[in-house]
Amino acid sequence: MRTEHYDVVVIGSGSGNSLPGEEFADLRVAVVEAGVFGGTCLNNGCIPTKMFVWTAETANRVREVEQFGLSAELTDVRWTEIRDRVFHRIDPISEGGARYRREAEGTDLYEGWARFTGERQLDVALHEGGTVRLTADQVVIATGSAPTVPDALAPLMGTVGHTNRTIMRLEKLPARMTIVGGGVVAVEFAHVFSGLGVEVTLVVRGERLLRDLDEELSLAFTALARKRWDVRTGTEVTGAEVVGAGTGAHLTLDDGETLETEVVLVATGRRPATDGLDADAAGVRVDEQGFVECDEHGRTSAEGVWTLGDVCDPTMLKHVANAQARVVFHNLVHPEELQSFPTVPVVAGVFSTPEIGTVGLTEAQAREAGHEVVTHTQEYAAVAYGWAMEDHTGRCRVIADADTGQVLGGWVMGHQAAILVNLLGEAVISQEPAHEWARGRYWPHPALSEVVENALLGLPAPRGTAAGR
Amino acid sequence: MRTEHYDVVVIGSGSGNSLPGEEFADLRVAVVEAGVFGGTCLNNGCIPTKMFVWTAETANRVREVEQFGLSAELTDVRWTEIRDRVFHRIDPISEGGARYRREAEGTDLYEGWARFTGERQLDVALHEGGTVRLTADQVVIATGSAPTVPDALAPLMGTVGHTNRTIMRLEKLPARMTIVGGGVVAVEFAHVFSGLGVEVTLVVRGERLLRDLDEELSLAFTALARKRWDVRTGTEVTGAEVVGAGTGAHLTLDDGETLETEVVLVATGRRPATDGLDADAAGVRVDEQGFVECDEHGRTSAEGVWTLGDVCDPTMLKHVANAQARVVFHNLVHPEELQSFPTVPVVAGVFSTPEIGTVGLTEAQAREAGHEVVTHTQEYAAVAYGWAMEDHTGRCRVIADADTGQVLGGWVMGHQAAILVNLLGEAVISQEPAHEWARGRYWPHPALSEVVENALLGLPAPRGTAAGR
Repeated sequence: MRTEHYDVVVIGSGSGNSLPGEEFADLRVAVVEAGVFGGTCLNNGCIPTKMFVWTAETANRVREVEQFGLSAELTDVRWTEIRDRVFHRIDPISEGGARYRREAEGTDLYEGWARFTGERQLDVALHEGGTVRLTADQVVIATGSAPTVPDALAPLMGTVGHTNRTIMRLEKLPARMTIVGGGVVAVEFAHVFSGLGVEVTLVVRGERLLRDLDEELSLAFTALARKRWDVRTGTEVTGAEVVGAGTGAHLTLDDGETLETEVVLVATGRRPATDGLDADAAGVRVDEQGFVECDEHGRTSAEGVWTLGDVCDPTMLKHVANAQARVVFHNLVHPEELQSFPTVPVVAGVFSTPEIGTVGLTEAQAREAGHEVVTHTQEYAAVAYGWAMEDHTGRCRVIADADTGQVLGGWVMGHQAAILVNLLGEAVISQEPAHEWARGRYWPHPALSEVVENALLGLPAPRGTAAGR
Repeated sequence: MRTEHYDVVVIGSGSGNSLPGEEFADLRVAVVEAGVFGGTCLNNGCIPTKMFVWTAETANRVREVEQFGLSAELTDVRWTEIRDRVFHRIDPISEGGARYRREAEGTDLYEGWARFTGERQLDVALHEGGTVRLTADQVVIATGSAPTVPDALAPLMGTVGHTNRTIMRLEKLPARMTIVGGGVVAVEFAHVFSGLGVEVTLVVRGERLLRDLDEELSLAFTALARKRWDVRTGTEVTGAEVVGAGTGAHLTLDDGETLETEVVLVATGRRPATDGLDADAAGVRVDEQGFVECDEHGRTSAEGVWTLGDVCDPTMLKHVANAQARVVFHNLVHPEELQSFPTVPVVAGVFSTPEIGTVGLTEAQAREAGHEVVTHTQEYAAVAYGWAMEDHTGRCRVIADADTGQVLGGWVMGHQAAILVNLLGEAVISQEPAHEWARGRYWPHPALSEVVENALLGLPAPRGTAAGR
């Protein structure tokens, strides 16, 4: 077997591919990729989905103009053009990235499945055939995550059943789509396809969508979703079959009902991509859920083996993975001054209808952490820009410590939530009492950011202080 | 003459009307208002304009869907409905506010023109007839600002000539409108009316629109404006006449050209509303431009006379006026612990096409203040959300100190600029080196806030440090 030795082998070309140029200039580096070069974010996740998300939002805007004294008609939705606009942009980036790794001095790209066969030793089953053995002084596990497919839905895969990996590349837009799952992937695609005119049904095991988020947010979002989509909660798919020579599916639910649909999107969850990696063989510990265990510096249980991103981090967020990549690639070459993964509160967006932004602790997490909690919810409808938008559903909720007034977390649900939550995140980072922080800066009137300002000012004054307003 | 004595007399019912309830509960307060109750922001400024701005943006969104693989047609623009939606919402708030001031215990409202006739003594010529003399222990001058009308355009006023006070209440939407001026008011209404289908011409004395802003911003905005509107720069209206029995106007420009138009919006500037106030009589100094002079606590040159808002502050921003109002109303009742006007950098939005947000110093101001300046401009087109939007014009520019890396100011021009600039403002407030600040928090991928993150990271590292990326 051909054997190659490298200074560093990185498994995974998502955030793992973001090698810092200067500091790695003298190192021999191999990147191994089993799937599409560039990882989930670029190819099947954040970036292409947002291009569809904006298109769907645009279509929705056209549908909702009447309330403003305008009339408009959405006369055409050209799926092929929509899809090709996205992938004619994305695919060349992926291909260009792969080409660069192949051709750049000091780096090699291996396209195939990596499996540990010893300490810092990997056998890569190449897609082109054959196996190569890679040994390295240091290895980075950055394999990301992959969608799960429940057994009951397996019969659909490859025909009418899809995951995020294939759903954006459909040949034609179906009239009806069933999305199984109620998490971020499910509600983003529900927005996308319903926006493009597809009748969307969601089948969710729990009673709420986005149930990992703050309970009030999850409840509020679910209530709005029911107005827009056919949301079946508390139910599960127990059987599935392809019908009509591959033009549709019948799904059997656990309550006995049968759903007829054209396309099924399986969005039941994602798991860390450690299958087949045989981490054990390298002495790398993996937890019960399949996540690679690591410390705050990105070190796994095996000397010289590091990890970053979805494969070790349940947030499964690209910006978290990127931050971890910066730390790991620094630590690789500066063992004498190890950096740590950031501990600042994580902000995140969910790009559905409505959009969501979250930061820091949920109310439940804040209570579990021992805080006496106060909250305040500010409606978009009560700030000037919300009036302008005729927004009757948007809101911002802040969760604070009753004694100190410090903001522990919160969320925004509505127009531009993913930007607005960044501002709320600043309040969390500041650790100042909410009122003081909000009063300590200007909020341009009448921008939508006033929902964040007013959410903070609406909190009760910290205990034992004079009223804070 | 009837004479009434009050603890506090406030002249102006805009930000001046935001009396803090609890601390003023035992005081006898009069509010004097010469115009519409509630001031410019509520009646003729920020709030109604943004309702039109969003409507116009919505219409523009409909027009621009083709690039996303959609087709749509804007089939109707119902001006009366658009206008009435706004004022059926705004007018009752103004009326309700006036009613409250008349009826609430401890406060009185005088509707008429106030003129100082002595120290803390005002004669108010009431709209209902008669004059009342008000004396007070303390007086707050909060008269705001008013649009100027150049002599050459005076003949149009009352018929086809408008200011921001009347333009939003037009009986019908004209086919063509000429806007004289190139400041914030001009470009916001240019967006509004062009968005609603009106052919807009701008006549500007200088060579650029928004010339008070950072020069690069002003240049970039002007270039985009020329694609959207007929922008006549370096020219001035020297004559104007109403034609067609009040259905249009002819404007003569200083280059001899004549513009035929239906409606003229005069947006040549605003001046502090001190005309007729006879501030001298009260011992209140007014500067050459008409602004009431004051110190950082809001105290004028006359003992017991305070000021706040547009009448004393050239920024003429509502959120600045509100902040000053909080300070002045605190200081009125707590002379032993005077607060100061905020010194944090001012953020501001301009709600045109594209939207603009600014914060802190312009490049020129930064140089004048003695900084060696570095800048970086980040295009929307180079972040994922910008791709999604097919945005080819948006950008964020940051202005920093070359030695320290501290951010001194900057701007955003494009989608959601007024929110995004709040984030940039946080970088300014932090006084941290730009790279450290940007790396010290999460930026949710792929939200549009990445333009701010990347603008900061794109700055060169502060001198004498290792590269900051």
